[in-house]
Amino acid sequence: MIRAGIVGGTGYTGVELLRLLASHTEVEVVAITSRAESGRRVDELYPNLRGVYDLAFEEPDVRLLAGCDVVFFATPHNVAMHMVPELLAAGTRVIDLSADYRIRDAELWSRWYGEPHASPEWLPRAVYGLPELHREDIRSARLLACPGCYPTAIQLGWLPLLAGGLVDTGTLIASAASGASGAGRQAKIDNLLSEVSGSFKAYGVSGHRHLPEIEQGLAAVAGGQVAVTFVPHLLPMVRGIHATLFARLRAPAEGLQALYEEYYADEPFVDVLPPGVFPQTRTVKGANRCQLSVVVPQNRDTVVVMSVIDNLVKGASGQAVQCMNIMFGLAETRGLEQVGLLP
Amino acid sequence: MIRAGIVGGTGYTGVELLRLLASHTEVEVVAITSRAESGRRVDELYPNLRGVYDLAFEEPDVRLLAGCDVVFFATPHNVAMHMVPELLAAGTRVIDLSADYRIRDAELWSRWYGEPHASPEWLPRAVYGLPELHREDIRSARLLACPGCYPTAIQLGWLPLLAGGLVDTGTLIASAASGASGAGRQAKIDNLLSEVSGSFKAYGVSGHRHLPEIEQGLAAVAGGQVAVTFVPHLLPMVRGIHATLFARLRAPAEGLQALYEEYYADEPFVDVLPPGVFPQTRTVKGANRCQLSVVVPQNRDTVVVMSVIDNLVKGASGQAVQCMNIMFGLAETRGLEQVGLLP
Amino acid sequence: MIRAGIVGGTGYTGVELLRLLASHTEVEVVAITSRAESGRRVDELYPNLRGVYDLAFEEPDVRLLAGCDVVFFATPHNVAMHMVPELLAAGTRVIDLSADYRIRDAELWSRWYGEPHASPEWLPRAVYGLPELHREDIRSARLLACPGCYPTAIQLGWLPLLAGGLVDTGTLIASAASGASGAGRQAKIDNLLSEVSGSFKAYGVSGHRHLPEIEQGLAAVAGGQVAVTFVPHLLPMVRGIHATLFARLRAPAEGLQALYEEYYADEPFVDVLPPGVFPQTRTVKGANRCQLSVVVPQNRDTVVVMSVIDNLVKGASGQAVQCMNIMFGLAETRGLEQVGLLP
Amino acid sequence: MIRAGIVGGTGYTGVELLRLLASHTEVEVVAITSRAESGRRVDELYPNLRGVYDLAFEEPDVRLLAGCDVVFFATPHNVAMHMVPELLAAGTRVIDLSADYRIRDAELWSRWYGEPHASPEWLPRAVYGLPELHREDIRSARLLACPGCYPTAIQLGWLPLLAGGLVDTGTLIASAASGASGAGRQAKIDNLLSEVSGSFKAYGVSGHRHLPEIEQGLAAVAGGQVAVTFVPHLLPMVRGIHATLFARLRAPAEGLQALYEEYYADEPFVDVLPPGVFPQTRTVKGANRCQLSVVVPQNRDTVVVMSVIDNLVKGASGQAVQCMNIMFGLAETRGLEQVGLLP
Repeated sequence: MIRAGIVGGTGYTGVELLRLLASHTEVEVVAITSRAESGRRVDELYPNLRGVYDLAFEEPDVRLLAGCDVVFFATPHNVAMHMVPELLAAGTRVIDLSADYRIRDAELWSRWYGEPHASPEWLPRAVYGLPELHREDIRSARLLACPGCYPTAIQLGWLPLLAGGLVDTGTLIASAASGASGAGRQAKIDNLLSEVSGSFKAYGVSGHRHLPEIEQGLAAVAGGQVAVTFVPHLLPMVRGIHATLFARLRAPAEGLQALYEEYYADEPFVDVLPPGVFPQTRTVKGANRCQLSVVVPQNRDTVVVMSVIDNLVKGASGQAVQCMNIMFGLAETRGLEQVGLLP
Repeated sequence: MIRAGIVGGTGYTGVELLRLLASHTEVEVVAITSRAESGRRVDELYPNLRGVYDLAFEEPDVRLLAGCDVVFFATPHNVAMHMVPELLAAGTRVIDLSADYRIRDAELWSRWYGEPHASPEWLPRAVYGLPELHREDIRSARLLACPGCYPTAIQLGWLPLLAGGLVDTGTLIASAASGASGAGRQAKIDNLLSEVSGSFKAYGVSGHRHLPEIEQGLAAVAGGQVAVTFVPHLLPMVRGIHATLFARLRAPAEGLQALYEEYYADEPFVDVLPPGVFPQTRTVKGANRCQLSVVVPQNRDTVVVMSVIDNLVKGASGQAVQCMNIMFGLAETRGLEQVGLLP
Repeated sequence: MIRAGIVGGTGYTGVELLRLLASHTEVEVVAITSRAESGRRVDELYPNLRGVYDLAFEEPDVRLLAGCDVVFFATPHNVAMHMVPELLAAGTRVIDLSADYRIRDAELWSRWYGEPHASPEWLPRAVYGLPELHREDIRSARLLACPGCYPTAIQLGWLPLLAGGLVDTGTLIASAASGASGAGRQAKIDNLLSEVSGSFKAYGVSGHRHLPEIEQGLAAVAGGQVAVTFVPHLLPMVRGIHATLFARLRAPAEGLQALYEEYYADEPFVDVLPPGVFPQTRTVKGANRCQLSVVVPQNRDTVVVMSVIDNLVKGASGQAVQCMNIMFGLAETRGLEQVGLLP
Repeated sequence: MIRAGIVGGTGYTGVELLRLLASHTEVEVVAITSRAESGRRVDELYPNLRGVYDLAFEEPDVRLLAGCDVVFFATPHNVAMHMVPELLAAGTRVIDLSADYRIRDAELWSRWYGEPHASPEWLPRAVYGLPELHREDIRSARLLACPGCYPTAIQLGWLPLLAGGLVDTGTLIASAASGASGAGRQAKIDNLLSEVSGSFKAYGVSGHRHLPEIEQGLAAVAGGQVAVTFVPHLLPMVRGIHATLFARLRAPAEGLQALYEEYYADEPFVDVLPPGVFPQTRTVKGANRCQLSVVVPQNRDTVVVMSVIDNLVKGASGQAVQCMNIMFGLAETRGLEQVGLLP
């Protein structure tokens, strides 16, 4: 039995980890921390977990967490990077759902996150937790940097095209949209139902923090620089990310459907839809799954890829569990068999 | 392995049965029928089921279904009552999620459903599938009438008070609200997002078809006539029922919290919340669970009970699976361990 | 031209006042205050007002506001009661949308709002701004206490029955539901889209602050004590209140439809729907209107009234403008001709 | 007083015309037709209009409509083209909100709408009702083809760039999203709340009927062929269109903000937002307004324009009224002063 700890358990990725791990037969959550809710029962904050966990939030404390085989950080950025070195030194493995270890270049990280990195020495040693790209490295990882939600949807959408060198990498365009849970469980006016419901808007157009992570990942696959114009939007709903990806074909393309189907043939959590079927966020709600479609409208020279995930599952907690399974030598699908909740 | 068939598999209770049975290790769905979609793959209509089922819809046919150990009817009313006698004769057990066998009095049924009952001889033999009331009868049932969604939420909410004779049974008031999935997957203007979203209304105020079923069930518990004023409302959301129940106490009441906790102490799917915590539909979304609160505002003489379920789970398909487990001697919670999807 | 000031203009009732007054030809908004946003342009916070107002938020200051003919308080409770006496002394008329002057009994006010009242001497002189009850007093009011949103919907729903002495006043039940804008523009986790969307719940069941105001108003009409069991609910949508009201008839009732139609025949903003038509919140969205239905289900002894308003219009800012029109001798409908935005 | 008729008054653009014309002091709606609802009062179908109109739906009949000064067609495509010639012959002016006369090339029209055009002789004489482009022609138009909702948002977004020859016209990308009211008031399963709510998807990716209209309009401005990759998406909300437009700059661009502000300086219904402010659909809800932002992310070579409208107002009925005002020599803003309903 794997003993797991969760830091920052009051947020949406924290409660989602608890939901997923509840059906994982090889893991026991032994500690969950929250500075704000310390002492309060988990199922008091989240009554959907009544009868499932007999846990209370505790103060975050390295000694407590060091007793775990693995610790998940479900925190905002800037938390994990202060605690992780000590935990790693204690022999615990770490899966960080935050942004702290996603970017390999400490200076680039600082530019986007507005402060120096607290443990830059660990940046090159962190493994980027996108199993479809880094499965082998994940097996032996001690520190895992889980991809952001947009980066997961976008990278999975473009991998086959970039790996195949089929599109111009200097004019990539990603128009993506996220449900409001992507903004976390934070008391901000911008996230009120009365502000978001019945409306749609772009945000972070001049520069969203997920951009460098996306370009870093795609560049590695393309074997050279890539430039992405990335416009995220806020959807009036809770869960789901939809990325609509545009790229210019280097040559007239046939067989893109087959290319995608083959590329992902062995992936348990990436599903290429049949021709003419476009993904909806609702078909992956609650499921650790990315569904994809590829189209070349009017047979012109622009290829459109649509990619959907549940931002809290394949875009966060589900992916974290998937990585944990790989790290601990378990079947990769363990605890992740949930079917999308439709309708 | 129990061989199960589903009649009317294209509706929301049908796809929900498929979602729940996907994680049920003792059941195999061997047939699913739909007149309209015959020949079409199930996962084409419901892409959340891709990779989970290798099934196509077939024409409803008694011979096909008679090979099943159990057949679920996930149809509108007026379908099951025509096919069920033949299926029962063939030795198949039937779990009817529709209204056809819920009311014991054929004449009363006809008055509310506007046509003669096609197999009234089976009405007295059908068992009403509310395990919290009829668990013993369910064990040996051959024909099971699953309760409606409102009746489940409302009866579970009032059972302890009525069984204890604590309230006036002539002035019961149920103000309940349902998500739009309760209206089914029917192409009606009234159910369009543009008609329902951002709005709230009562409907069926002069008489909703679930009323006789509610009064029949409560009368049996109360041991005498009951009169319920029942006002259903339509919520601008997909899943969930919330019933707010008002009753006049016969005497000043103390210990109602304890009464409820004791009454439901052994029920795996009824959860009495702690004092001061009120249920939300979201904490039971996707879960086979009823959460309840009981309050006497200002210590006056009216007791308020709040009861929530997911109308597609404890209000339909989950309850059907729960009953099936009982009928086939399995653990009652088998396949029903899903945690509510929150947020 | 009436010179109007608005205190607390950043909230939802503030911006709604601005929207309504934009089409009011007899009023000019000359000052709007907000401590938090002082110096910021109004249309920067609310881009729907671009080109309509050339105003910036200012620090709340009695000298500034004393130059107005009328000052609206669109503040949380506990603000107006500190500034109002000085403003009144300066000859300005005050329309308070908050709760500060709604309850005539200072001690009762303190019990529900948890602090002493700062200007209790004004409580008996404040006029309760429900024109359908107090039109004459409003004409000469210097201090107007606008009713809360729930109290407006509920009182308008029950007035004809209580004025006629037709129902038992000791067993009144109000099951009401409000859109999230009723909670104001406050950065609270409970009001996040991710917490509210797709869910429904009751709140304040043991005692909501609108209860004493409702009972005070109804008692005056009934000519004696009334007891209301009031359960408010939170709807997953922005605007709208729906009250479902239950009362026990003292005698078999006929002609309730005619009673309601006659009672409200001359009211410009109360609309009794035809028999069999039930109100929806969407048909009054953005409009200063209450729509009502009255039903006696199954001709039993309980009468059900459904009452809808837009909580920000007839439940707040629209009612405030209606009262202002009366106070200043204008046509009561001036600036309030907006048709409900449907769909 | 202009006597107006409306054909197809039961749909969302029909009821929106009624809402807008209710506050238009120079227009009287004298006839409204609907084959399905003939004989039914308008305010029975749309209770928000109670007390505003005393009209009933009538059978569509040219003789009836020929008595109007102007007739609006708020019908699906394929209706207007059969009735319009006769109406025009009778001297009535026609404003067609449907697609029948938007495309000048009859063959192209047939290819996208799947049938021969019934009155192709009128295609070259119809004026495309985008006032920002064709104001002068609209003045004298007898037959006006109102632009589609996507084409309005997209063309207004790109006009300044294309007119200025600043971007590559062969690689334009439009990623747009619409509320569900854009699909009309049709009883289709795809538009049910239970299908749309809480989800997001692209549709019509291989070719949406608005594409040829968009390319036709932009080509005229650019003075040469344009190619647009257009991906529409369905939003889980009622009203609003958001277009996110991507184009490659021909040269490093400065002063795009000023370019946009100047281009639209005299337009009453196009509002260029200040730098750094991005539009939201909610700020134009119910208003005849397009709000725009222009950004060059990271100062690279791709310019992003965001454009929002209310699809039922500036994208349909409001634009129709705006055109009518121009056609009849009225102030262009008459009846269109509504402020966006926020929140």
